[in-house]
Amino acid sequence: MGLDLNSDLGEGFGAWSMGEDTAMLDIVTSANIACGFHAGDPSIMRRTCMTAVEKGVRIGAHIGYRDLAGFGRRAMAVPPTELRDETLYQIGALDGFARAAGDRVRYVKPHGALYHAAAADAALADAVVGALRDYDPALVLLGPAGTHLEKSALAAGTPFVSEGFADRGYTAAGGLAARGTPGAVLDTDMAVAQAVSLAETGTVRVAHGGATVAVSPDSICVHGDTPTAVGMARRIRAALEDAGIAVASFT
Amino acid sequence: MGLDLNSDLGEGFGAWSMGEDTAMLDIVTSANIACGFHAGDPSIMRRTCMTAVEKGVRIGAHIGYRDLAGFGRRAMAVPPTELRDETLYQIGALDGFARAAGDRVRYVKPHGALYHAAAADAALADAVVGALRDYDPALVLLGPAGTHLEKSALAAGTPFVSEGFADRGYTAAGGLAARGTPGAVLDTDMAVAQAVSLAETGTVRVAHGGATVAVSPDSICVHGDTPTAVGMARRIRAALEDAGIAVASFT
Amino acid sequence: MGLDLNSDLGEGFGAWSMGEDTAMLDIVTSANIACGFHAGDPSIMRRTCMTAVEKGVRIGAHIGYRDLAGFGRRAMAVPPTELRDETLYQIGALDGFARAAGDRVRYVKPHGALYHAAAADAALADAVVGALRDYDPALVLLGPAGTHLEKSALAAGTPFVSEGFADRGYTAAGGLAARGTPGAVLDTDMAVAQAVSLAETGTVRVAHGGATVAVSPDSICVHGDTPTAVGMARRIRAALEDAGIAVASFT
Amino acid sequence: MGLDLNSDLGEGFGAWSMGEDTAMLDIVTSANIACGFHAGDPSIMRRTCMTAVEKGVRIGAHIGYRDLAGFGRRAMAVPPTELRDETLYQIGALDGFARAAGDRVRYVKPHGALYHAAAADAALADAVVGALRDYDPALVLLGPAGTHLEKSALAAGTPFVSEGFADRGYTAAGGLAARGTPGAVLDTDMAVAQAVSLAETGTVRVAHGGATVAVSPDSICVHGDTPTAVGMARRIRAALEDAGIAVASFT
Repeated sequence: MGLDLNSDLGEGFGAWSMGEDTAMLDIVTSANIACGFHAGDPSIMRRTCMTAVEKGVRIGAHIGYRDLAGFGRRAMAVPPTELRDETLYQIGALDGFARAAGDRVRYVKPHGALYHAAAADAALADAVVGALRDYDPALVLLGPAGTHLEKSALAAGTPFVSEGFADRGYTAAGGLAARGTPGAVLDTDMAVAQAVSLAETGTVRVAHGGATVAVSPDSICVHGDTPTAVGMARRIRAALEDAGIAVASFT
Repeated sequence: MGLDLNSDLGEGFGAWSMGEDTAMLDIVTSANIACGFHAGDPSIMRRTCMTAVEKGVRIGAHIGYRDLAGFGRRAMAVPPTELRDETLYQIGALDGFARAAGDRVRYVKPHGALYHAAAADAALADAVVGALRDYDPALVLLGPAGTHLEKSALAAGTPFVSEGFADRGYTAAGGLAARGTPGAVLDTDMAVAQAVSLAETGTVRVAHGGATVAVSPDSICVHGDTPTAVGMARRIRAALEDAGIAVASFT
Repeated sequence: MGLDLNSDLGEGFGAWSMGEDTAMLDIVTSANIACGFHAGDPSIMRRTCMTAVEKGVRIGAHIGYRDLAGFGRRAMAVPPTELRDETLYQIGALDGFARAAGDRVRYVKPHGALYHAAAADAALADAVVGALRDYDPALVLLGPAGTHLEKSALAAGTPFVSEGFADRGYTAAGGLAARGTPGAVLDTDMAVAQAVSLAETGTVRVAHGGATVAVSPDSICVHGDTPTAVGMARRIRAALEDAGIAVASFT
Repeated sequence: MGLDLNSDLGEGFGAWSMGEDTAMLDIVTSANIACGFHAGDPSIMRRTCMTAVEKGVRIGAHIGYRDLAGFGRRAMAVPPTELRDETLYQIGALDGFARAAGDRVRYVKPHGALYHAAAADAALADAVVGALRDYDPALVLLGPAGTHLEKSALAAGTPFVSEGFADRGYTAAGGLAARGTPGAVLDTDMAVAQAVSLAETGTVRVAHGGATVAVSPDSICVHGDTPTAVGMARRIRAALEDAGIAVASFT
């Protein structure tokens, strides 16, 4: 029984930096690397790919909307055919750096507003999966379980890896508790406990409730945008290893 | 004895179009396709790659400075390491569409201000060649003979294909006559004659002079940005074929 | 009784041109000039402002989403506070060129997806009106009647000018017939007749129906993106003048 | 006898922040605010203008090349007419926010590669001054003394304010010692002493030499990109005030 840890990395742009990439690449097993549309630039992409390969971390294309000003967090009505093209562009661009570093892009994960849009809309999910398969049918899709992203992947024969969150509360239905509601965001101790619970039992406690719900992701998304976040990620990895859970990439 | 015809294609962006791409893809054998930095967007890249493959035209990455507002025609002091990264990004991005269309990027040609800068500067030429080799050492470099681009390619073991111009006058030294000087720009009849001369004899008449100079490019660059330009390109191809010269890609 | 004619102008970008701006500036009385977010660049803005002032055409800021790749036609979830800032930025940027040309920005019109979004959403409409008033409370808002744009303008004390279309069919409710439905798009003869009818009677015939509906815009939007469109615009202006209707800016 | 302190502010973009703007606005008297071309976005521009006005700091347009990826630090061969247009665009855009905050743009300072290019090239300096005067002939130009920027300003009748540096060594000719040479960069104690010397005596000690040279800027540029830089800026201001020098804007 193993578990992957993934994190959003390479999110600087030009003179601007973001996140503690070097520290995170010692913790995670999968690096979602921004491809220049919502963040990232060619030099950051090369550096992040090189460091990932050095540390044995798998490279994923963190595809996003073409919206540097909004960091890909603003919903955009990109038609599915354009989205497929924009996705293929980003995968190819990142793969050049992955190859130069001695590996390949192994998976694709949508970012920000695109993550939510493609999870909720079959045509957008199909566009992402279509681009992924245009590039290489062996590529894996990483995303939220039970959504159109999973459905499109499975329908196309694309391997799907589901992700969960250590630091977010879950509802009785197995979804994430909405931000702003009680128990939606967990502190470090609770997040560490939830990560171990997910991995050991395939269940978590429902936010603000005694019940448990089955949640069994293949990968946990951890954050590295602040020193505190890095500390949480490090503790999660340590707790998983202490519990005898193999922390390893899904590929 | 054969000759390649190359042209800059896929130079629209979003709602803006440029050039007569469909017509040109019936004339040329190599398509220099913009990769989104100075022109081109993912949907244009896909369409141009698909049409090129349908018509048996080879796909080249027309790499440029990140300067949509200036169409890549403004010199920019991009440090060599950044240039290498920006070049690799563009090659990879285009190759995704070339693969999806059933072929691969076969060569790289710098565009605009980068063409001139990399021809004149060893470090920049090395950066372009380095990126090309990072991606795939089998890639060909297309550019002006006798420049740092050729030298860097040869030093690295990268195949180099030289390009010439049918519609530009040459100096006694074998270089292009500067725009604005007499004989610098040829009319259609003269351009057709010069193309045949280049291919048949490996020489051209010097602009405004009776002498000839040895000029023997592997590929002739033709333009398709106006209906007149397309007409000239069509006549050049017809004249070459009438003269028994095989018009064929260099790959 | 007078009528304004407005058109979207200055919609090129860098090396790419769009539309027949010079011809249109002889026809219209109000120029909606793109401000660099969805189209337009500083040099185009200066040229368009200068020609507009020379020809006595009023300058309006044609504000749009920051989306050159999508020409501002893709809906974007820009929060109202950001939209207010992006709008103010664009108004100020254009006004520099209007001043340099000897006039001022006189009005604001949203473009593309923002036009529709702000018409339908009170908070977005308030953001546009807020930015307009931040800059100069004397600025006019040009947009569709009966929408949140009109309501926000009136609530704030901002002068509102409604626009109609000569070449689009209207429903019995006074709205535009949806594209793709019968009678949604009028040919030149019908558009000319509708323009005169709007101006003379304040009514138009309902698309595919014998009834008429009251439609009385202060300005008619005409297009100049093709030679045919310019021809229609020219005929509309001539027909209005032949009917004795003063074609004049609303300011 | 007074002295201005200026600093580059508002240099974030979207999700990316840079510098300690709030702290710096308590120290400086003139804020060089990025206008969206090399850094800055509409929301940052509004916030920075508002805070500047609240704290009584003068607003200047920190104009730069259109190069977010390079932070305006890469030389670009922008033709003077385009540069004039790009400069006017940026001044106008910022002035909207300055007006909304209750003040106006008071001066213009070129940034990064443009600072150096316009200092060294008469046509570029004229373009900057031309744009400044297009917008408002009362605007001040802030830049390095003895350069084309100063000459163009004086020739046009534009007020010129010279800037110096507390933390950079000067040559016997009154220029800055090149980075990398001995004494080119001063530590905090030396920078504080140099600031006071500049203001009190109009001279500084030559880098690595016993002589002094006349250097008498109207404004000292201080940095706020790191906590250490903020600390130096704060000490410089305190030392000037302790020495009885009025720290005040030049407008």
